[in-house]
Amino acid sequence: MSNGLQILKTSTISAARRGVLKTAHGEIQTPFFMPIATKGAVKTLSSADMEKLGAEILLSNTYHLYLRPGMDVMRAFGGLHKFMDWHGPILTDSGGYQVFSLAARRKITEEGAEFASHIDGSKHMLTPEKSIEIQQTLGSDIVMVLDECTPPEYDQETLNNSVDRTVRWAQRSKDYFEQNRDTSNNPGAMLFGINQGGINVDLRVKHANDLKQIGFDGYAIGGLSVGEPFEESCKVLDALQSVLPADKPRYFMGGAKPHEIVAYVKRGVDMMDCVLPSRNARHGLLYRFVHDDLSRPDFYETLHITNAKFAGDLTTLDFQQSGYSVSGNERTFSAADIQRSGHSIELSRYTLGYLHHLFDVQEVLGQRLATMINIKFYLELMERIGKGIEEGKI
Amino acid sequence: MSNGLQILKTSTISAARRGVLKTAHGEIQTPFFMPIATKGAVKTLSSADMEKLGAEILLSNTYHLYLRPGMDVMRAFGGLHKFMDWHGPILTDSGGYQVFSLAARRKITEEGAEFASHIDGSKHMLTPEKSIEIQQTLGSDIVMVLDECTPPEYDQETLNNSVDRTVRWAQRSKDYFEQNRDTSNNPGAMLFGINQGGINVDLRVKHANDLKQIGFDGYAIGGLSVGEPFEESCKVLDALQSVLPADKPRYFMGGAKPHEIVAYVKRGVDMMDCVLPSRNARHGLLYRFVHDDLSRPDFYETLHITNAKFAGDLTTLDFQQSGYSVSGNERTFSAADIQRSGHSIELSRYTLGYLHHLFDVQEVLGQRLATMINIKFYLELMERIGKGIEEGKI
Repeated sequence: MSNGLQILKTSTISAARRGVLKTAHGEIQTPFFMPIATKGAVKTLSSADMEKLGAEILLSNTYHLYLRPGMDVMRAFGGLHKFMDWHGPILTDSGGYQVFSLAARRKITEEGAEFASHIDGSKHMLTPEKSIEIQQTLGSDIVMVLDECTPPEYDQETLNNSVDRTVRWAQRSKDYFEQNRDTSNNPGAMLFGINQGGINVDLRVKHANDLKQIGFDGYAIGGLSVGEPFEESCKVLDALQSVLPADKPRYFMGGAKPHEIVAYVKRGVDMMDCVLPSRNARHGLLYRFVHDDLSRPDFYETLHITNAKFAGDLTTLDFQQSGYSVSGNERTFSAADIQRSGHSIELSRYTLGYLHHLFDVQEVLGQRLATMINIKFYLELMERIGKGIEEGKI
Repeated sequence: MSNGLQILKTSTISAARRGVLKTAHGEIQTPFFMPIATKGAVKTLSSADMEKLGAEILLSNTYHLYLRPGMDVMRAFGGLHKFMDWHGPILTDSGGYQVFSLAARRKITEEGAEFASHIDGSKHMLTPEKSIEIQQTLGSDIVMVLDECTPPEYDQETLNNSVDRTVRWAQRSKDYFEQNRDTSNNPGAMLFGINQGGINVDLRVKHANDLKQIGFDGYAIGGLSVGEPFEESCKVLDALQSVLPADKPRYFMGGAKPHEIVAYVKRGVDMMDCVLPSRNARHGLLYRFVHDDLSRPDFYETLHITNAKFAGDLTTLDFQQSGYSVSGNERTFSAADIQRSGHSIELSRYTLGYLHHLFDVQEVLGQRLATMINIKFYLELMERIGKGIEEGKI
């Protein structure tokens, strides 16, 4: 089987799919969630930590890595995998989103996006070809085409023009990708197109058909999670279901709350990324499961660990309770437990009261433990969703 | 054998000793180094991390923990060991040093030290009895008496008066310690006296004799590492050697560079703490061994990882090379290797180039990896010193 998606089960009660995505760096069960290693590390965590947490794929940002450490360093290492010693697959974005949201200045032309670095003001030109070149140097397993993530305030004509240009950029991206595949740092990489069109469903469908004509290894739905109501995102996904090729992976780009992830999976989404678990963790907001039934909107809750009520709280941090017992201060683990559970063991050692204290005195360890808790929650959520599809519940 | 020091070997070429210190939370080989978990965590590291690094004892700060989380929380947990889930021994300082260096205002009287919190300005009174009470609530294994760490600028009369008061405080400390031992969170704790006297050798000797009269489980040498020349510290240690009881542990308080640690051990010191490895790590300064012969002043070197020359450097971080081979990207470890080597495996995965990048983009993971490297260096140094004593080289 070549790299790509193999669907193992399709739900009979929704458009949810359970499958396996084969990449040049191993297989991942779908649907899956990608923790974000923006600048070559998930903030506060190492690649070894991500393995222990059970992450199977990471997302890294082209814009950031292009500026620092830069491509000379990346060539010296032979790519991002060796740079951060991550052995699983990596998806990289095109850099477009950061150019539009972070860069000091930018100007979009047919050629590409000219921008000034947010770090030192230096000028750069990000073309569709340049974005692919960078991602092929990074050795990414899933390469994204350069697109314009259209802001909600675009009028209809500007939106139409932008989407048309995104199609032309997609073609140029594919041409460059194929021409340089063999000499890249990852000849087994896949290339994904990105669907745009705001919340205009007709435009979304037209654009998806245009991308399908070009032909990609997978299709991302971009330009959502930028402030529009959740219901509008669902309408777009509903409309795209019959248009996007059923045998290709579908990637919903950008932030999603846990219950939104369930809704997107029900609409046929196989892949998601989200900065929420790690960003919220650094502000002391923790996720934990409350109910097993994921169709309930209240299947999880959030704890604000900085709240004074957590001072002296003896509850341990093992929110997931994954397969071993915790009772008070008496805990015994077999060697097999430790091997299997990775960071679960470490998290189960500490208490809400200790975590509250670490945030109170601004110890970085607090942010680290909270990040592990939340990433573990999102990974566990995907596992529960996968089981739910298998059992016919989703 | 009750808690205390058992000397296994005394050097014939110096005053160095090799032994075992038995505490209420296990035995430690002497001489040893104590990483500093100021507010209940070694900055960026967890108790599990410290175990994996091979730390056998931690030092925590009474002043900080008294203010946050405070004694109500500590009583709820039954002490600091459970609060931070650290199963090995803990030494706590008396809080005096921080009152003198950190507090917003302070006034010393015969009764104790009145001070205003550096956090909220609230007023507190730290008496010898209060310091012991806090440390007994923390459940410390090695409790330190309250002393005044005399600054170098004291004139002779002020110094004399301060040292005399420290003797009276030491007696009050011991009385309170013994009276409340059985109801404390650690009835097996030891109490250490602290020798002061600046760099006045005669005063040091007189003070040490006064403390010996009271009788302690161990003796600390305080008030050094406060700016005086290294040679003056050595003179004080030389003079105290024949005065301090040979069968009790000797603890040199405060910062020491690696070659200074070797010099102090040669003068009979069994215990050291130092904020340098972790503080320097957070600024990107790394220690590594260069020569096996510890009598050479250049047996180690420091790397400034933020230096641009480290960009793209493929050298791995495993400075200690403790018993397994690293060659390029080909590494194989047995399960036993992993069990034994703990964080060595993790450190050996990453490169100087990656670490440089993490500091460059200000990822906290960089500070964490650097802290692990430096604490591992100091622990490895103590192991090498111990072997050196056994082999008759120190």
